[in-house]
Amino acid sequence: MIYFDNSATTKPYPEALATYTEVATRIWGNPSSLHNLGSQATRILEASRKQIAELIGKKAEEIYFTSGGTEGDNWVLKGVAFEKAPYGKHIIVSDIEHPAIKESAAWLKTQGFEVDYAPVDARGFVKVDELARLLRPDTTLVSVMAVNNEIGSIQPIHDIATLLEDRPTISFHVDAVQALAKVATEAYLPERVDFATFSSHKFHGLRGVGFVYIKEGKKITPLLTGGGQEKEMRSTTENVAGIAATAKALRLAMENQEAFASKTQQLKEVIRKELASYPDVTIFSGEDHFAPHILTFGIKGVRGEVVVHAFEEFDIYISTTSACSSKAGKPAGTLIAMGVDKSIAQTAVRLSLDFENDMSQVEQFLTKFKLIYEKTRKVR
Amino acid sequence: MIYFDNSATTKPYPEALATYTEVATRIWGNPSSLHNLGSQATRILEASRKQIAELIGKKAEEIYFTSGGTEGDNWVLKGVAFEKAPYGKHIIVSDIEHPAIKESAAWLKTQGFEVDYAPVDARGFVKVDELARLLRPDTTLVSVMAVNNEIGSIQPIHDIATLLEDRPTISFHVDAVQALAKVATEAYLPERVDFATFSSHKFHGLRGVGFVYIKEGKKITPLLTGGGQEKEMRSTTENVAGIAATAKALRLAMENQEAFASKTQQLKEVIRKELASYPDVTIFSGEDHFAPHILTFGIKGVRGEVVVHAFEEFDIYISTTSACSSKAGKPAGTLIAMGVDKSIAQTAVRLSLDFENDMSQVEQFLTKFKLIYEKTRKVR
Repeated sequence: MIYFDNSATTKPYPEALATYTEVATRIWGNPSSLHNLGSQATRILEASRKQIAELIGKKAEEIYFTSGGTEGDNWVLKGVAFEKAPYGKHIIVSDIEHPAIKESAAWLKTQGFEVDYAPVDARGFVKVDELARLLRPDTTLVSVMAVNNEIGSIQPIHDIATLLEDRPTISFHVDAVQALAKVATEAYLPERVDFATFSSHKFHGLRGVGFVYIKEGKKITPLLTGGGQEKEMRSTTENVAGIAATAKALRLAMENQEAFASKTQQLKEVIRKELASYPDVTIFSGEDHFAPHILTFGIKGVRGEVVVHAFEEFDIYISTTSACSSKAGKPAGTLIAMGVDKSIAQTAVRLSLDFENDMSQVEQFLTKFKLIYEKTRKVR
Repeated sequence: MIYFDNSATTKPYPEALATYTEVATRIWGNPSSLHNLGSQATRILEASRKQIAELIGKKAEEIYFTSGGTEGDNWVLKGVAFEKAPYGKHIIVSDIEHPAIKESAAWLKTQGFEVDYAPVDARGFVKVDELARLLRPDTTLVSVMAVNNEIGSIQPIHDIATLLEDRPTISFHVDAVQALAKVATEAYLPERVDFATFSSHKFHGLRGVGFVYIKEGKKITPLLTGGGQEKEMRSTTENVAGIAATAKALRLAMENQEAFASKTQQLKEVIRKELASYPDVTIFSGEDHFAPHILTFGIKGVRGEVVVHAFEEFDIYISTTSACSSKAGKPAGTLIAMGVDKSIAQTAVRLSLDFENDMSQVEQFLTKFKLIYEKTRKVR
């Protein structure tokens, strides 16, 4: 099996799973319990929080656990919008955000909020000057992702941070789900960022766990209210085993981040170079300021799902551009926002590589690509 | 170790953990992926949904997975309130609901909704006649728990169902977190119930997984919007391993439900009888219409946390009445709602038994209780 679909989900590290099992078996108390089974669980929880915070260069008190990237994105969008509604009801999100952001923004519109969408250029980068023009006195939140999930463009977070430097009342959120442990943290987590969203299963952690960075002092309305866990900010009995496994996975992934970037970049460039030699191939992912592991392309006239299924026949797993929208058969929102014609956007498929991939897999992929390319010649 | 704190959390079944590990290791694809790693994951997901639905006597299409009881409660409260806001902004919750309900209701009040609290009698049961008087033409939701988490009273869900029979526009929600696999499903899930909330870690499943029953055709606004999973009702990459483990745990727990009830009831009655012989003991949990496994009592003049810590010295784990509020040091909301004086309510501790407990543990508990009772004589 060749798995080139790591942006959809990653295989859990065996070490993370072992941590999960050990904690769930031995330290299964409820952290809210007064007795020492509760205290033991609290110690693991807080040690995990501290480790995760250190790995992203933040303070433990700034990390809040969630059930994943979608909850984090929903929480920040809705939580900041509601929290700041007395001061303004205008928010800005980029035009290429994940549906967790875009759909949350769409819901906020039904609740009397105004939403503007910051456009992107033809290469898939938010136009910071146009974003600047959207800012209003009643703008309370700007949300721009770190790494685009459909083509891998690394967004100009530093430029946006500079833009917002003298507008301290605007909260700045970065959806970093596809960025963490893939590109250097500094690229997307400058000091000006107030909120950032992360998901465990994207870095070989476990499904159902994520976390949000909330800068000290920043206010947000909770999405999950109840027993008062996470300093009254996110109630529910803490998934201590999943959180400990996430800390373990993040440590392993971060230790490997530079090697990951260098290896996947190398593999990707081999694929890019070869694919570029086919006249009917469109490559959507550019070279500069792109995540090392994502390459999105299409065969003219051939729908993305046809290519996905053709590779599946060879036990090679790739994706149309986003797992979340693939079943709905929607064309890639990012490509449309970039101005790509719908008929071309529908051809897009995404490769998302991992450190576990190697050159022999790349060669097999390219061999099979040649077959698929030739086989689809008649429909082109 | 003697663990009598099973309402706070339960130890995962080894079989459920084994299922988790197996699925997370072998079927780790993203169900949204088009390729067959996605289809494999979808098959496990849907088989788990079907099994869970059958175990509670509902249809697979009526089960939606969540991250736990708190998310489920938040979703139903906020989701129904927002969905039905055009028709009315009045909701009713009982005065003894879990904080996940009460705090969600409190937040809705900040958003222009009106909330009434249905009172309970001195034994801890919602007064259905008083609930009836709170109903208004603009009432959209009534939320009453199945089994109270602080004293174990089984609420008159059938009577409320009858009351609401001719008011089909009012949604009826039951928080069944403490009821599932403890009391017979029929006791709290009559046909009139439109929504019900469940949590995996309360029946030896895993932390971070729960589900909501939503009766076919009932409308609710999603709390988590995004990629469109769970039929556009609850977005986020599905925690397939956790869900499969939940199905496994629920099967085991339900197969054992009658034996659980009979055994824990027997153990509880031995404890009750003995404790009742101490002049300074107040027993808060009644005999009829109470969950078999919960017994809440207090030693006059001795704060609950003192008793919890005294038992902890003997490696016996009990709780002040609710794990979620124990660290906050709040007196038990249910007892206050029952009209118990605050000074008495503060003495309350809760035993919550499990099938794994036995008579020898009960005897040890009672022996240690005698010591603690005598030791605290001077402060009484």
